Amino acid sequence: MALIVQKYGGTSVADLERMRNVARRVIAYKKKGHRLVIVVSAMAGESDRLINLAHQASEQINERELDVMLATGEQVTSALLSLILHGMGHPAKSYLGHQIKINTDSIFGKARITAVEGSKILRDLDEEKIVVVAGFQGETAEGDITTLGRGGSDTTAVAIAAALKADLCEIYTDVDGVYTTDPNVCEQARKIPRVSYDEMLELASLGAKVLQIRSVEFAKKYGVVVHVRSSFNEREGTIVCEEDTDMEEALVTGVAYDKNQARIEITKVPDRPGIAAAVFDGISRENIAVDMIIQTSSLEGGFANIAFTVAKTDFPKALAVSKKIAKDIEAKEVIAEEDIAMVSMVGVGMRSHSGVASKMFGTLAREGINIKMISTSEIKISCVIDAKYTELAVRSLHDAFVLHKEHR
Amino acid sequence: MALIVQKYGGTSVADLERMRNVARRVIAYKKKGHRLVIVVSAMAGESDRLINLAHQASEQINERELDVMLATGEQVTSALLSLILHGMGHPAKSYLGHQIKINTDSIFGKARITAVEGSKILRDLDEEKIVVVAGFQGETAEGDITTLGRGGSDTTAVAIAAALKADLCEIYTDVDGVYTTDPNVCEQARKIPRVSYDEMLELASLGAKVLQIRSVEFAKKYGVVVHVRSSFNEREGTIVCEEDTDMEEALVTGVAYDKNQARIEITKVPDRPGIAAAVFDGISRENIAVDMIIQTSSLEGGFANIAFTVAKTDFPKALAVSKKIAKDIEAKEVIAEEDIAMVSMVGVGMRSHSGVASKMFGTLAREGINIKMISTSEIKISCVIDAKYTELAVRSLHDAFVLHKEHR
Repeated sequence: MALIVQKYGGTSVADLERMRNVARRVIAYKKKGHRLVIVVSAMAGESDRLINLAHQASEQINERELDVMLATGEQVTSALLSLILHGMGHPAKSYLGHQIKINTDSIFGKARITAVEGSKILRDLDEEKIVVVAGFQGETAEGDITTLGRGGSDTTAVAIAAALKADLCEIYTDVDGVYTTDPNVCEQARKIPRVSYDEMLELASLGAKVLQIRSVEFAKKYGVVVHVRSSFNEREGTIVCEEDTDMEEALVTGVAYDKNQARIEITKVPDRPGIAAAVFDGISRENIAVDMIIQTSSLEGGFANIAFTVAKTDFPKALAVSKKIAKDIEAKEVIAEEDIAMVSMVGVGMRSHSGVASKMFGTLAREGINIKMISTSEIKISCVIDAKYTELAVRSLHDAFVLHKEHR
Repeated sequence: MALIVQKYGGTSVADLERMRNVARRVIAYKKKGHRLVIVVSAMAGESDRLINLAHQASEQINERELDVMLATGEQVTSALLSLILHGMGHPAKSYLGHQIKINTDSIFGKARITAVEGSKILRDLDEEKIVVVAGFQGETAEGDITTLGRGGSDTTAVAIAAALKADLCEIYTDVDGVYTTDPNVCEQARKIPRVSYDEMLELASLGAKVLQIRSVEFAKKYGVVVHVRSSFNEREGTIVCEEDTDMEEALVTGVAYDKNQARIEITKVPDRPGIAAAVFDGISRENIAVDMIIQTSSLEGGFANIAFTVAKTDFPKALAVSKKIAKDIEAKEVIAEEDIAMVSMVGVGMRSHSGVASKMFGTLAREGINIKMISTSEIKISCVIDAKYTELAVRSLHDAFVLHKEHR
């Protein structure tokens, strides 16, 4: 008998028939004696419908008000699933973010969870109820409704699992688990049975959209074991957990790519102490997350070029801020590039093996792909390339590192 | 400079274009220096869509969960109107029931407001913001979401006006005001310029659907002046206020009808003290509101017939309970009748004039309409008749009491 948190994504609750399937799965678990907390997303397409409506209402979007609208998507699903469970004879109770006190900061549209109160849920579980929670939403200290950004329901699920000290957190989605790379791009992509938090963090932050990155951070911080699997079959998915000896001994675990990036370069920046801080202070004040940063000193001396990447959604805002900053610090110009992609290799094996970087660069070179930026961490290497080469790069790297075979 | 609460109903916010019209009206008031709180309903059709969805999800409806769904309708409208106001350059802030602490009891689907906290709204008004409130919803002491029943946004508006001691509460709807009777049934119906709380209470409870009856109770209790008017033109509507000498001196103010009633009769009830209490205790325990009650003692002695009317929506539940009660108290049988209507004459003038009742009965008799039940109060007389005679009865009474002419 375990306490299990299950999260069902938008495609898993896309219509009433799919919700009934979800209810049947939940009830099967319940009948085994498990205590269940179900976190649901909005029905597929509903969030986009609401966003479109908001954009039709006003050109400028007030983010507080947009969150009030968006939160209704999950609210409807949570009530519907509870109704269905009731109808099938299993008492259920829905909760919204503010009702169970999922507290967040005040960054509307991509708020971070600061605390979760589990007592109401535990009381209902003690009364044999199935608890259904509207994912993706929380409440600020001032009582305003916030949403957690795309994929935020994953984070709701993991945060609740952490607060309740759940035995397991299952993330049900429309894919079978975490793959060595995107199966849509590379036929040979293979499901990874187990992956460490650190690898998953890199994969998630590099564009593998299976889990929201914050959910993985939460899982790592609180040691929540996450099982990513499909709601459309019974197959085992991918377990995300602490690094252990059961994991594959490959150099590289997966290849990720991200086309949702844009590159901004500020040229001929006067090269003096504190200049990078001046640039990125201005950008972070706008709540824009910067991914890769490269600074190069010019040979002519006294000047540097500063380049960085941001999410495409933040690009217009980032470009405007950069132009203002460039003027303030008397840099030469701002160069923007939208047609780029980041391709990355991730693997804890890199810690103890060298040669991954040179093999990666060699593979890309052989395909005639020019590398525009490089960034590395302990367990990943990322290259920014022309967007049009993305699929070619992914397939070549998957091949070169023999990722279609299990390494043990 | 006044503090004005305005409520816009579902047809007034049916689409974005109409919401823009609402926003323009609101801004025009703002520019005159008024402080504004705007209460909105769900977009026309949205509540029905949600109810249908719930019924498709489950045959048995859990009322707590239905309210969670229904509350999203007003939530979306409140955010959209705020977005539009922002887009037009006027800072606005939306609030849900739980955010401004509209406290209610726990009767899901038709909760009653117990308290409204006005401090958040007043703070925003001091900051020159337009406050937009999602109508129709509240929160129980346990933090559950409730809805206030059809027309509940009227009550939200009046309750907020009372809490804020607003100067005026305007209810914008798709009709011009309160009429002497339903203009769809009687061409000669005339708009009433002023009507007292007591008359409006009777008219509302008797089927004039312009205002939710609880909103009138609230208005009367706290002395809130309510102006019912159309959002589609600039014409004056009907002022609902304390009875005053400016009001018309007619015997009768209006004719109301209600086809949404059903009649239940329990026959041959043992006629002993406490028997009526036994019947209606059982019914009120199911949260069914009973309207007209008639008890007749049978000539044979020792037995009575008890008849009453309930809303059609409560009819199946009321019938089931009545059958159970009839068995318990050893009554003979339960007779149910759904095709009935209640036609009523209302007017404060009745207090000081006699003869209204006999004129009403005579008018109906001349048209060959049989009266099944009669009920009177200080300012109204109601008759239950066959539903098919409703329109005929309304027109004849409107004529007989010369309601198309102003009486002064």
